[in-house]
Amino acid sequence: MAGGSGTRFWPRSRQRVPKQLLAIATRKTLLADTLARVRSLATPRATWIVTGASHATAVRREARGLPRGNVLVEPQGRNTAAAVALAALRIARTAPDGVMIVLPADHAIGDVAAFRATLVQAMDVAVATDRLVTIGIAPTRPETGYGYIQVGEPLDGGAHAVARFIEKPDLARAQSLLEGGDVLWNGGIFAWRVERILAELRRWTPDVVGPLEHALKRGTARALAQAYARVPSVSIDTGVMERAERVAVVRATFPWSDVGSWAAVADLWRNGHEANAVRGSAVLVDSTGCVVDAGSRLVALVGVEDLVVVDTPDALLVCPKGRAQDVRLIVEELRRRKLQRYL
Amino acid sequence: MAGGSGTRFWPRSRQRVPKQLLAIATRKTLLADTLARVRSLATPRATWIVTGASHATAVRREARGLPRGNVLVEPQGRNTAAAVALAALRIARTAPDGVMIVLPADHAIGDVAAFRATLVQAMDVAVATDRLVTIGIAPTRPETGYGYIQVGEPLDGGAHAVARFIEKPDLARAQSLLEGGDVLWNGGIFAWRVERILAELRRWTPDVVGPLEHALKRGTARALAQAYARVPSVSIDTGVMERAERVAVVRATFPWSDVGSWAAVADLWRNGHEANAVRGSAVLVDSTGCVVDAGSRLVALVGVEDLVVVDTPDALLVCPKGRAQDVRLIVEELRRRKLQRYL
Repeated sequence: MAGGSGTRFWPRSRQRVPKQLLAIATRKTLLADTLARVRSLATPRATWIVTGASHATAVRREARGLPRGNVLVEPQGRNTAAAVALAALRIARTAPDGVMIVLPADHAIGDVAAFRATLVQAMDVAVATDRLVTIGIAPTRPETGYGYIQVGEPLDGGAHAVARFIEKPDLARAQSLLEGGDVLWNGGIFAWRVERILAELRRWTPDVVGPLEHALKRGTARALAQAYARVPSVSIDTGVMERAERVAVVRATFPWSDVGSWAAVADLWRNGHEANAVRGSAVLVDSTGCVVDAGSRLVALVGVEDLVVVDTPDALLVCPKGRAQDVRLIVEELRRRKLQRYL
Repeated sequence: MAGGSGTRFWPRSRQRVPKQLLAIATRKTLLADTLARVRSLATPRATWIVTGASHATAVRREARGLPRGNVLVEPQGRNTAAAVALAALRIARTAPDGVMIVLPADHAIGDVAAFRATLVQAMDVAVATDRLVTIGIAPTRPETGYGYIQVGEPLDGGAHAVARFIEKPDLARAQSLLEGGDVLWNGGIFAWRVERILAELRRWTPDVVGPLEHALKRGTARALAQAYARVPSVSIDTGVMERAERVAVVRATFPWSDVGSWAAVADLWRNGHEANAVRGSAVLVDSTGCVVDAGSRLVALVGVEDLVVVDTPDALLVCPKGRAQDVRLIVEELRRRKLQRYL
């Protein structure tokens, strides 16, 4: 899943360069990193990307190792239920008995071998139990930006049933969840048999899968565009996972980050050792906890703490790490002022 | 006096572009503003600039209205006693009976008519009393960066004797000075008869004026260089003003700023009305008290307070307004790292 157009990494991310096309965790783009990780799990022909029309060219450039037809282009963004349905329908044609892994293209994973082991385990559980399997991430903080999973009774293969899904909590609820017992973050990584997810999509979100199925049978771009115009915007979580009865969770054994904002970059760049997370040439005096993404110019800081400074050829961002989510306010302001060239 | 090479306005100020050559208070350089103000007080032939060898070309460009010989070039910087002595010796040749005004080239003055009136008054006092006259600035805060003047008994012409000069105080002392009574800041602006200042220089700083007088008699650049190599670095304040007996002070009636750092720029740009002092194109969201000098790029701030952000083609500065004096630490660090191109 390489859709969406993150605004939280402005000024690096722009309408034409969303987060998954940024080299933000490593020197390669998040999408390229994701494709590299997937290589140990699936052949190029069995690797599919769903992306939006405005990023198709850039995504294809990153996906040169894949058959051209494996980049599925959505005429418009319609959330993850539609993206999963489109991929599942397409995959069912060539591998109706297949097992499908769904991965966001814009996450950072710390340990590829552990990542691979967890996903192999999840696929085994998906085949053995015919459940929808989600990967649960061990929470490290009372995060309010993620959904949580209450872990249920154990299943075979080291998996657990899902007792219930908990929507993004407020801070007090997140804290009590962490104290209360066995909860995991819902990281948006899934494994399931193609037939199982299609059956669940048909049951819970027929208004999503129906029009897409019809359009794929007609096989024209126009038909797909008409279908997407009618499809409701529903996430795979609220649309299917939270309603389906046969759901399982497998614990991630790898370090995981959804790289949610510039603040999250600190951990990826710094490795927890240095006082500041810095890319490019910078001079920092009496400064700690900062994230500095210097472009071609020298960035000099004196006496600042926990500040994000991002320097690009045409725009510069300065904000406290604690306000990193509010970078979207800048993007909104630029839209209001019709400063299109910075969007 | 257009010498010195301010580092506190880095990255705008560089070795080749010191503060007086920056357009920092208005759209013109501080030197050009100073020359424009002086035009109402002196003819071009009676206007002299003392500057350093490394800035002579740039200074002459700003001083096109002046005879070329009126730009006096010091072979090396030797503080203000030497600069004043050089100018006084040179002026004495053409106008031995003249009255001399000494002005730093890098101050910002809010009201040119009031500035002119104060200086005319100071010249009148200098002629009438044959005292060394300094302009006293009414303090607006317990500043620790300036010397203070204790005002003495009244003299004719609205002037006062100087009871004593007080060197840069610490904060507690500065506060008690403000509470204690009639003190003024020593702004470094002077008026005196040329003969009087030369007499005082000869009396109090013969090791400064002696070698210079000798060199000017010989009239070669080499002689001047040799003299400057021997001259001690003494300010006109500690060298002469604080020792001389016949000193007077005239109160400034104009808004004054020595534009000591980026923090001081806030008052000059903002006029006290807006939440932030901004030059160039910037988008500020939930931000107050900031000084933003944007170059050709967009500067975007979210959720920051009292921050200085200066954007130049090759370097960028971010520091709290309260640390604006410490910009020199960056310059020192650049020197240590031999990053010559940013100096």
